[in-house]
Amino acid sequence: METKNLFQTLDQTLVVNINGEIFSPSDAKISIFDRGFLFGDSVYEVAYSQENVIIFYDDHIQRLYNSASLIGMQIYLGENYIKEQIIKTLKVKNISESYIRVILTRGESQINLDPSCSFKNNLIIIVGPKPVYPLAQYQNGLNLIIVNTLRNNIKATNPNAKSGNYLNNVLAVNEAKSLGVDDAIMLNDKNEVTEGPTFNIWMIKDGIFATPPLKSGLLRGITREKVIYILKKNNLPFSENVIYADQLLDADEIFITSSTRGIMPISKINDKIFGNNLNDWPNIAKISKLYNEFINNEVKLKQINY
Amino acid sequence: METKNLFQTLDQTLVVNINGEIFSPSDAKISIFDRGFLFGDSVYEVAYSQENVIIFYDDHIQRLYNSASLIGMQIYLGENYIKEQIIKTLKVKNISESYIRVILTRGESQINLDPSCSFKNNLIIIVGPKPVYPLAQYQNGLNLIIVNTLRNNIKATNPNAKSGNYLNNVLAVNEAKSLGVDDAIMLNDKNEVTEGPTFNIWMIKDGIFATPPLKSGLLRGITREKVIYILKKNNLPFSENVIYADQLLDADEIFITSSTRGIMPISKINDKIFGNNLNDWPNIAKISKLYNEFINNEVKLKQINY
Repeated sequence: METKNLFQTLDQTLVVNINGEIFSPSDAKISIFDRGFLFGDSVYEVAYSQENVIIFYDDHIQRLYNSASLIGMQIYLGENYIKEQIIKTLKVKNISESYIRVILTRGESQINLDPSCSFKNNLIIIVGPKPVYPLAQYQNGLNLIIVNTLRNNIKATNPNAKSGNYLNNVLAVNEAKSLGVDDAIMLNDKNEVTEGPTFNIWMIKDGIFATPPLKSGLLRGITREKVIYILKKNNLPFSENVIYADQLLDADEIFITSSTRGIMPISKINDKIFGNNLNDWPNIAKISKLYNEFINNEVKLKQINY
Repeated sequence: METKNLFQTLDQTLVVNINGEIFSPSDAKISIFDRGFLFGDSVYEVAYSQENVIIFYDDHIQRLYNSASLIGMQIYLGENYIKEQIIKTLKVKNISESYIRVILTRGESQINLDPSCSFKNNLIIIVGPKPVYPLAQYQNGLNLIIVNTLRNNIKATNPNAKSGNYLNNVLAVNEAKSLGVDDAIMLNDKNEVTEGPTFNIWMIKDGIFATPPLKSGLLRGITREKVIYILKKNNLPFSENVIYADQLLDADEIFITSSTRGIMPISKINDKIFGNNLNDWPNIAKISKLYNEFINNEVKLKQINY
């Protein structure tokens, strides 16, 4: 019964690596004393590969270390070991376009909040097929809502640490889905726009591209960073100032960025309609084209080939 | 190597029940696709037993359901099933004074924040010897510090949901320990006192017992509730208004409450010394005595005998 349920829910096309050993999804288990399970005391990254190249590998690993640093987690594993295990898992799965999730926990410990009780990490790598989002979403955009669930305060649980404490994001998604909307936009307690549960948010007003600053409380998205780089390189006007909810709703065009989705337009937020398709959003069309060229170029450079 | 480390860290006197099956600590494992592991998407309770009676069992179960409700988690398991499994685990361990941790997760799912992807719970029960705190801590008090880590905002991740998202608390403990102090006191973003990472906080000023209100952002502690009940029953003056940091430091006596520790005095917060031993704290001595009588009476009533 339990196994049956498990097979209904788990994607059996995934391959899991736990501390160097390969498991099928139904055999992939971790100690209940792992602090990731007890307290959400873990950090993670999601990357993907294209034509056997892990896109922005160095950025993802750097951010994994940064998340660990933000929560005071020591990483006892060498960077080379982590890379070896990622490549080993990719080779088992052996597909050229992969989803890659790397989870690093503070390891098992006594049931005690004090993180000094732990002294080893558990490394979990999950590899599967890269999710393919419907083309219609890239053409016609998503429908979002500004939810009542606030983003965690930067001084409480910093959203820039990509950690196993994702309940805040789960609650936001739940709120949006229960209202029949695709996804959520979260504000902080000062009514500033922060981000979505799994993406950064962008607006264009009078030709100026704008995204909220880190100090509003958000993850430094890798796609966000790349878009900033592309805008600057192409001399496109860019601003990284605080955005309030009413400013967002007053924008000409809205899009989101994430590693797996890339750039995706937003057609509606709350009751405000921003348009129906990419023809209505010339600036999003422009940055999408530049971003796709940038990714294709990245793949050609093949930093990490496996 | 891994197993050796595990044995070094894990308390082998514990007994674990996972979905009805009994495991030793080193064999107690959960799917890495459990949402408790992926996102901290779980709720939990810690209770203890004395003379084979689970103290305040009904309160703990009620709070478990309340935590689940606060995070929109459906509990598919019957209350009777949960009770049966707790008693089964206690019988395996077979000691009269036990530590009991009950963890309920939203179960395995696809790797997707949307909680509607899950449709079963995982129930984990951990039973071990009740921790014994040093008598000196009850006599001479603890040394606390008001940490920079703020408590999670009630509208972001409600501290009244006892969930698997305990990184906020881990960070606070880590901050306190790194300063050589026993434990932490956390404020919210309005400079209001909330609670400690694993306890509620109380102050006495001019004979009035005071503890922060739920709206400041804290867990409705069961010992906290019982102390309120005892104060009211004994016509002792009690207030549940917002407490600011400077008011706390200006108190005559300070104590904390938690299910496992009961009532414990505080001798020092930051640079402020409140005294050296229970003789300096007549009101704490009084409420401790009343509380211990209350517990002993509770044990005699033996609501849940196993």
